[in-house]
Amino acid sequence: MSNDRLIFVTNDDGYQSKGFRAAVNLAREFGRVIAIAPERVQSGMSQAITITSPLFLRCVERSEELEIYAFSGTPVDCSKVAFDHLLVGRKVDLVISGINHGSNAAINVMYSGTMGAAIEGSLYNVPAIGLSIDDHDADADFEGAVEYGRKIIAAVLASTDMLPRPLCLNVNVPRCRAEEIAGIRLSRQTRGFWREEFYERTDPHGRGYFWLTGAFQNAEPEAEDTDEWALRHRFVSVVPVQTDMTDYKMLKALDGVL
Amino acid sequence: MSNDRLIFVTNDDGYQSKGFRAAVNLAREFGRVIAIAPERVQSGMSQAITITSPLFLRCVERSEELEIYAFSGTPVDCSKVAFDHLLVGRKVDLVISGINHGSNAAINVMYSGTMGAAIEGSLYNVPAIGLSIDDHDADADFEGAVEYGRKIIAAVLASTDMLPRPLCLNVNVPRCRAEEIAGIRLSRQTRGFWREEFYERTDPHGRGYFWLTGAFQNAEPEAEDTDEWALRHRFVSVVPVQTDMTDYKMLKALDGVL
Repeated sequence: MSNDRLIFVTNDDGYQSKGFRAAVNLAREFGRVIAIAPERVQSGMSQAITITSPLFLRCVERSEELEIYAFSGTPVDCSKVAFDHLLVGRKVDLVISGINHGSNAAINVMYSGTMGAAIEGSLYNVPAIGLSIDDHDADADFEGAVEYGRKIIAAVLASTDMLPRPLCLNVNVPRCRAEEIAGIRLSRQTRGFWREEFYERTDPHGRGYFWLTGAFQNAEPEAEDTDEWALRHRFVSVVPVQTDMTDYKMLKALDGVL
Repeated sequence: MSNDRLIFVTNDDGYQSKGFRAAVNLAREFGRVIAIAPERVQSGMSQAITITSPLFLRCVERSEELEIYAFSGTPVDCSKVAFDHLLVGRKVDLVISGINHGSNAAINVMYSGTMGAAIEGSLYNVPAIGLSIDDHDADADFEGAVEYGRKIIAAVLASTDMLPRPLCLNVNVPRCRAEEIAGIRLSRQTRGFWREEFYERTDPHGRGYFWLTGAFQNAEPEAEDTDEWALRHRFVSVVPVQTDMTDYKMLKALDGVL
């Protein structure tokens, strides 16, 4: 373990989740760790920020090599309070967000609080890795995610000065035993979208309610360079993520229309 | 007004906001309107979705030409319940999200609930326009936004069959009187990020709290093809938005590293 390095860890499942603890333990192999996670589960919080209410930061564990905080805000708020408050003036070597319970491949990257926090960290010019497994079970097996997460973290830290910034990786690990994983595969985000089936019921007071439940529609199931393809074939998918959402092709199509 | 058209309107400031009412009235010029907005202010909610709790939908106004609903979820939840529940089987011609109180230019597109809902709508293959003004005042002057919003809506509806899908426009209107607006300018998203200054105070019970307050750092203030430049020069900026977040340049840089 290199004590020279400082790793920031966050997630979206809350500071008590099994995945967060696994990420903290993994990060500890690479240096000192400061971790801030939401007080409560914040799945699907995307890049959300808290504007209209105050936020509370609470230390839940502290030793020389490790500090863990719970924060009342969103995952992105956690990254913001880390870099613009707690870690100001300190060199941070890496952001790890996760380990998320559930895949953030394809368009899930846009809904994901895990990836929201990773993206936000990368905007502070620190390499960021969002690490997720394709398994929603609260007691999911993290062995493969830890093994391949370790390889990817080591590779990024070894190449950190050679890679441009911002650098943000969306890493997804298939749902299988570690020894069944076929390897690491650089991928692009699969095209597709979610279609919801609203679960409709009536509450005890007679009010109808909805609950979101849907299925991902893969628009290119045969494309072998995508993250969904990689996961289905038991590869760990790695998609580098950027934040320019401009549709440059559409810019040309709109010329003359507007 | 064409009664053949059906327009879906949503926003992130809640169904009672002045901007939402302005968007509904503007949409009414182009057809029948079904509008669903959050029960409460949902600024900064990004692409967030509600997974872990039930959602309630409530009709607040209904006539032959106009239906308005309040929904207990996020802006994206509003788009989802519209297209996967309320409007299933009906042809929708346009999504209008807004009018938002505050600019969604540059990286704000990622934090914005207004744009989250617009993007979500575009994923249902319906042209979507997120409309915002660079003014946070709850009683902001929407005259310019309405005038230029009207022009852009008319142009999109007139060209709807010629333009590829998904089609999502991030439209931002400068803070000035309508007659001072210099025109419409197709732009790309400005590079830059927010740096926060956490406002720190102590609550009545002695607990310290934080409140997010920051400033946008424009990484390319001189670039004349950006949305921030357009707004500063009193143009209405129009940025087409896409959802592939893959960093293709970084994919090449990572080849050999991973």
